[in-house]
Amino acid sequence: MARIGIIGSKGRMGQALAQAVADAGHEIAGGVDRGESAGPLASEADVLVDFSRPEALDANLGAARVAGIPLVIGTTGLSAEHHAMIDDAARAIPVLQTGNTSLGVTLLAHLVREAAGRLGTDWDIEIVEMHHRMKVDAPSGTALLLGEAAAAGRGIELGENTESGRDGHTGARAEGAIGFAALRGGTVAGEHSVIFAGNEERITLAHSAENRMIFARGAVKAAHWLIGRDAGRYTMNDVLGLT
Amino acid sequence: MARIGIIGSKGRMGQALAQAVADAGHEIAGGVDRGESAGPLASEADVLVDFSRPEALDANLGAARVAGIPLVIGTTGLSAEHHAMIDDAARAIPVLQTGNTSLGVTLLAHLVREAAGRLGTDWDIEIVEMHHRMKVDAPSGTALLLGEAAAAGRGIELGENTESGRDGHTGARAEGAIGFAALRGGTVAGEHSVIFAGNEERITLAHSAENRMIFARGAVKAAHWLIGRDAGRYTMNDVLGLT
Amino acid sequence: MARIGIIGSKGRMGQALAQAVADAGHEIAGGVDRGESAGPLASEADVLVDFSRPEALDANLGAARVAGIPLVIGTTGLSAEHHAMIDDAARAIPVLQTGNTSLGVTLLAHLVREAAGRLGTDWDIEIVEMHHRMKVDAPSGTALLLGEAAAAGRGIELGENTESGRDGHTGARAEGAIGFAALRGGTVAGEHSVIFAGNEERITLAHSAENRMIFARGAVKAAHWLIGRDAGRYTMNDVLGLT
Amino acid sequence: MARIGIIGSKGRMGQALAQAVADAGHEIAGGVDRGESAGPLASEADVLVDFSRPEALDANLGAARVAGIPLVIGTTGLSAEHHAMIDDAARAIPVLQTGNTSLGVTLLAHLVREAAGRLGTDWDIEIVEMHHRMKVDAPSGTALLLGEAAAAGRGIELGENTESGRDGHTGARAEGAIGFAALRGGTVAGEHSVIFAGNEERITLAHSAENRMIFARGAVKAAHWLIGRDAGRYTMNDVLGLT
Repeated sequence: MARIGIIGSKGRMGQALAQAVADAGHEIAGGVDRGESAGPLASEADVLVDFSRPEALDANLGAARVAGIPLVIGTTGLSAEHHAMIDDAARAIPVLQTGNTSLGVTLLAHLVREAAGRLGTDWDIEIVEMHHRMKVDAPSGTALLLGEAAAAGRGIELGENTESGRDGHTGARAEGAIGFAALRGGTVAGEHSVIFAGNEERITLAHSAENRMIFARGAVKAAHWLIGRDAGRYTMNDVLGLT
Repeated sequence: MARIGIIGSKGRMGQALAQAVADAGHEIAGGVDRGESAGPLASEADVLVDFSRPEALDANLGAARVAGIPLVIGTTGLSAEHHAMIDDAARAIPVLQTGNTSLGVTLLAHLVREAAGRLGTDWDIEIVEMHHRMKVDAPSGTALLLGEAAAAGRGIELGENTESGRDGHTGARAEGAIGFAALRGGTVAGEHSVIFAGNEERITLAHSAENRMIFARGAVKAAHWLIGRDAGRYTMNDVLGLT
Repeated sequence: MARIGIIGSKGRMGQALAQAVADAGHEIAGGVDRGESAGPLASEADVLVDFSRPEALDANLGAARVAGIPLVIGTTGLSAEHHAMIDDAARAIPVLQTGNTSLGVTLLAHLVREAAGRLGTDWDIEIVEMHHRMKVDAPSGTALLLGEAAAAGRGIELGENTESGRDGHTGARAEGAIGFAALRGGTVAGEHSVIFAGNEERITLAHSAENRMIFARGAVKAAHWLIGRDAGRYTMNDVLGLT
Repeated sequence: MARIGIIGSKGRMGQALAQAVADAGHEIAGGVDRGESAGPLASEADVLVDFSRPEALDANLGAARVAGIPLVIGTTGLSAEHHAMIDDAARAIPVLQTGNTSLGVTLLAHLVREAAGRLGTDWDIEIVEMHHRMKVDAPSGTALLLGEAAAAGRGIELGENTESGRDGHTGARAEGAIGFAALRGGTVAGEHSVIFAGNEERITLAHSAENRMIFARGAVKAAHWLIGRDAGRYTMNDVLGLT
């Protein structure tokens, strides 16, 4: 039984987390939301789970560090600066940051990395995702996670090889590029496809979530797993033994 | 038996057209390509088929007009100005302009219009397409044709209601918007999906082309149909009796 | 406000119906399950909704008839005999039987009928559906409903033109046949695709349900609509004005 | 440069093979078809490629064995007896039998095996395929190949765990079963999806062939690779180094 603190407790994921914590037999240490400090919550919890906003990340990392407890970060839209903050905090406490906490997506990323490593650059890689109409950023954190997996398989940097949001006169596709496209609509919980388009054949590796609970369950599993670990930066692969 | 002149004869579609003309028992009056005038060709042909570039459209319309013969326009990437040129020429000769010449896509557009007319704006409309790695513009002409069909069904203007190429912080989806996303890779001849995403359910209307010949066959059918018609602007719906 | 009686109240759909009745501001008149007569319930309700088993249909129709109230039938796996029973009861009371109560599927069936009517028999029709691992019959009631729509569009009888469950040496596809395939797994609420496969091109018309509530909401809407109608056999098209 | 003999030379695959042999700079040693013995052809060739019928397999293996040359078998619809014949011949000559000769499918099978090995039996496995209207057997050889890969990943026998061609009252899905469904229509060259359906999430691993040439190219590549190998039974994994 773990006491889990939720940052962003009133959002969609925050509510799903509350249910997943209860379903798994853990205890909710409390929740904070926009404008509230996570400091007092950290002192009451064994681990924090953060599905809030990038702007709050620095303060949330600080709160976990002061309390000496682990932090699971599911917030999307992180910049290189945010990743540097995470690396820094991970020298003092265990931190797990991920674009997606589900078992299925974690395995999918593993398969994408393997496929990308075995197929040459004459197989173009495209990643397309669909989410509900309220989502405010694109591509999704999960799409970027899958893009990183593809880039790692190819031994390239994702940042220098991205084509995202094609519109207008784009010119022909750059060889070796990884393309992203974002669909928004309805109440879709999350769908991702990684397409390897070769000469006259195509491989597609896809994941579909029926609702948000699979992400909440995975985040709770990760939070529980993180308690008592050494300081360091972890991924869902570590939680699921997918290495 | 018709004598058909091909503008853009050395391109991928030009070559497919040559085969489709022969398959259908017609005759190729000749072909012109970048830098060549279509004038002499027009004087030898019963009808012209243009799958070249927007920059050549004005001259091609002029050549057809001088010769008094019909023109089928499959060139994509047309602006409002180009459409005005077409309207102008259509007062003198029969002109058929379309983003897609296949039977399947023409029927699909018909179904999209009907579905859009019956579903309220709580059903978000997204259009996603995939084409081969050499395609230089996005969204495809067919995607725009399907978007026009959706907009017509809803009684709105597509231009004012488009979300295309989402990337970065986009904010939540605008109600009533029609979204576009473009995938590029491999040798894909053309795939289009129109997604109506409602509350907890989705309808998808899609078309997939196995190769370029279906477009060439449709263009030849349209060219033959257009010979001897009154001056005016026609669509594939007219050719297929889909009204 | 209507008093709605639920036959099969403890099943998955029964539970979803209870919530949909409450959500829509109606009242649950009560529920019966396997081994219980719907007679007493019918005397307390304005309308009955039956998502139980084919074996109970005759008795359920009788109960509605005695009470003089309408009946919505969502039970799947009905035989020609069951349909004859429904036709008979519909001379005395309003009865609506359907393989699917969602707005999306009802519209989809409408589009399928139209497409089938416009495409020749050189376009092969295939219907594939996926449902959760607990579903006990195949094809789904919705798949059959879509097959009926396709057959009506073509002006043929579905029964004489079905290819279902291909396995082993099947021989080449019969011209004009409508094929069915059933996938089962996980917790999938319901996905259906109608594929029109022509020469080198394909049109796919599909529906996806995120959960069971869309069916429950549609059934409640139909039940409410049915109260006070003349005796007769109705469909979801009547409820939604899709004729 | 290899001299390649084609068994089943007038079929669809036989014609594609002839082109692929020429494209790759090899030479066609000749072709035989229904009713003709492959014996004389074997004496003129460096390797045989057989895309004919199961009934001819025994004689074809014998012809290769007498001539002491390798054989690539792409014929589908093989029984356990046929596999025993192949094992027997493979003691004398190199034999490669496969349900699919494309690079993409071979990699897909590799990924399917890995995914099946990592996901528990609460993830149901379904395999759905679509082929052109002339195909006479179901499931396709490629679907069975993918099913074998899934079974190998799980450490079970496919034969004892298959649910194919669901139709009628099927009962709930058996835990651990691998399901198959076959769609037929149009001119589809070959599409396969392996679906892992878990609780509220799904992973889909899919392959799509635009035309038959990818299979022919792969078969020619395998034939060339097989020349000069030790006697034994090989797979496409060996040709592509995917072990």
